[in-house]
Amino acid sequence: MAKEIERKFLVKGDAWRGQNAGKRYRQGYLSTVKERTVRVRTVGDKGFLTVKGITVGASRSEYEYEIPVADANEILDWLCERPLIEKTRYRIQHGGLVWEIDEFEGENRGLVTAEVELKDEQQAVKPPNWVGQEVTGDPRYFNANLVAKPFTKWESKT
Amino acid sequence: MAKEIERKFLVKGDAWRGQNAGKRYRQGYLSTVKERTVRVRTVGDKGFLTVKGITVGASRSEYEYEIPVADANEILDWLCERPLIEKTRYRIQHGGLVWEIDEFEGENRGLVTAEVELKDEQQAVKPPNWVGQEVTGDPRYFNANLVAKPFTKWESKT
Repeated sequence: MAKEIERKFLVKGDAWRGQNAGKRYRQGYLSTVKERTVRVRTVGDKGFLTVKGITVGASRSEYEYEIPVADANEILDWLCERPLIEKTRYRIQHGGLVWEIDEFEGENRGLVTAEVELKDEQQAVKPPNWVGQEVTGDPRYFNANLVAKPFTKWESKT
Repeated sequence: MAKEIERKFLVKGDAWRGQNAGKRYRQGYLSTVKERTVRVRTVGDKGFLTVKGITVGASRSEYEYEIPVADANEILDWLCERPLIEKTRYRIQHGGLVWEIDEFEGENRGLVTAEVELKDEQQAVKPPNWVGQEVTGDPRYFNANLVAKPFTKWESKT
C-alpha cells in the first residue's frame, strides 16, 4: 500500500504552457464512494486500475495495478459511471517539486488544476506564480466528484 | 474480457462431502452496484481484484487481475463494505462438469450453493443428486447481495 500525500491548487493564466507536451488521460469510476473509490484510467497506451481509501488530511491509501489497455478501454466504454473524465496532464519541475497540471475537457472544460506530491504533510511548498488558490481537501475538485457534478454545471466556481 | 456463463443451485444434504479438501475464500466488495461490481478476494495465499458488469441471462462480463495478497488483505480489512463474505469452496467433478460448492460461514452460515461454468447458455447440465433448486438469476444469492442481506437475516429462505 502506498500513502498519497498531495496538495492541489487552481491554475491562473497561461504562463505554465509550452514547457512540455502533455499526456492524454481518460478515466472513469466504478465506485465514487469516498471510503472506497475505484478508478480505471488510460494514460497514453497504458491502462491502470486504482483503489483509494478515505482521505485523512492530505493523505490517502492507494493501490494501483497496471492492466491491459484493451481491458481498461472496455471497462471505460461499458461499465464506468458517466461522464468520463478526460484531461491532458502536463508535468512541470519547479522549486524541486514536480507539478502536475490537469487541463480538463468535455463536461469539465475550463477547469485547470495543479498538484504536488509531498513526502510528508509538513513539507514546505513554494508555488510558482501561475498557481492560485489552494483547493486541497475541497471535495468538489476530487476527480471522482467531477463525474456527478462536472465543472461546467457548477453554479459558483469560487 | 472474459464472459462468465454460470448456473447456480442450492445444495441439499451432505452426500457431496469428503470428496476433496476445500479452499478458504475471503472476499469483500468495493462496489455492489449490479452494473459495476468490484470484488477483492483471497483464495488461500493468492489475492485477486475482479470487475464484473451487469448480468444478462446467465452471462456476465468479467475482468480479473491477480494482486499481492498483502494488498488484498489490507483492502479487505480497511476498505471493503461489511460484512465480508467467508466461505470454503469445494470443486467436484460430475458428468463432465466441475461443480463448485460454496459453504458459507459467518453471517451467511447455513447457505450452501453449487455452481457450474458453461461454454454456452444452451449447454445441457445433468445435476448430481445432491443438487436441489436452481437459483440462477435470483439476486438474493449473488455474493455481492449477501453483504447487505446476509443469509442468516433472511425472513424467508425459499
